[in-house]
Amino acid sequence: MKILLIGATGTLGRAVHMVLRERGHEIVTASRTGSEISVDITDPDSIQAMYERAGRIEAVASAAGGVPWKPFAELSAQDVRDGLTGKAFSQIELVRQGSARAAEDGSFTLISGVLVRDPLVRGSMASVANGAVEAFVRAAAIELPHRQRINAVSPTVFSESMDHYGDLFAGFEPVPAAMAANAYIRSIEGRQTGQVYEM
Amino acid sequence: MKILLIGATGTLGRAVHMVLRERGHEIVTASRTGSEISVDITDPDSIQAMYERAGRIEAVASAAGGVPWKPFAELSAQDVRDGLTGKAFSQIELVRQGSARAAEDGSFTLISGVLVRDPLVRGSMASVANGAVEAFVRAAAIELPHRQRINAVSPTVFSESMDHYGDLFAGFEPVPAAMAANAYIRSIEGRQTGQVYEM
Repeated sequence: MKILLIGATGTLGRAVHMVLRERGHEIVTASRTGSEISVDITDPDSIQAMYERAGRIEAVASAAGGVPWKPFAELSAQDVRDGLTGKAFSQIELVRQGSARAAEDGSFTLISGVLVRDPLVRGSMASVANGAVEAFVRAAAIELPHRQRINAVSPTVFSESMDHYGDLFAGFEPVPAAMAANAYIRSIEGRQTGQVYEM
Repeated sequence: MKILLIGATGTLGRAVHMVLRERGHEIVTASRTGSEISVDITDPDSIQAMYERAGRIEAVASAAGGVPWKPFAELSAQDVRDGLTGKAFSQIELVRQGSARAAEDGSFTLISGVLVRDPLVRGSMASVANGAVEAFVRAAAIELPHRQRINAVSPTVFSESMDHYGDLFAGFEPVPAAMAANAYIRSIEGRQTGQVYEM
């Protein structure tokens, strides 16, 4: 299957790349820098240019999206906008534009995360974006044309990221990024839609 | 209790107004037009002006927020932005600014809705905004200062609105707006926080 992998250079993106390759898929990588296609997913024009370069694809796998991490009392109005744009608007726009271009039976797999159900101090914008993404997946699933499907992967913190986040996720049970990557395979090769794969 | 009611002129807002009055609260009303204070909650400056006029308040009750209702295939990028701004950014901004102004033990009650769990054709932007709002409520609850609290009311379609929405909610069991209004009392007068009251 020809798959467009966005956010290919991150911890999760690299794990998804590895498992897609093991499954014999043809992969086109995209990310801000360091991939075959450079893309800023907060910019609809940049997304359009990415899809034009990628050509006809059968699945879109997103492991991309960023939000401000700040204590609630320090958030500015712009931080709230950036949180909504960075991980929710951006991924919705991937699907909105991609739906018109993806193949019959094509699929979209988006990234959410544990903070939608288990909030953390400093993580409110991640919670908000994830809540929007998961609700979008359930809603878009009943409207996508051409039997296209959409699911979200909603992992807890990755073992590989525990050092980076320090005490923020203290007491959380981390999982390897490869476990979340497996859920992308389940979404892409399976027939489910409107699902959120939690781990 | 002195309560700022935003969206006071809508179907839900009028029902909340009635039940707050019955409970003996002092109510300051705000909405785009027709209330004591005119406010555009998508504009942070307008929210600031509203809070300055309202003075010291003990609870904020929001029954406000709008999103585009369109088939998914007809949504523009701007529609997605408008959906996120109209009901999610706007209500988050009510809390972000309000938290610094509300009293010790003050509360925020936001409006979500059934589409976060039961999507409808044409309702994807409502689903997205509601998902963001409910995740925000869970997240903000653990960070609000001064023992402030936050909850969301997440009702199904109102009996009063069935004519307006026509067949869109066919098969949904409507509830009177007064039932959702009661949940505002529960949020304001109770001590719960981080809750989503579904009906």
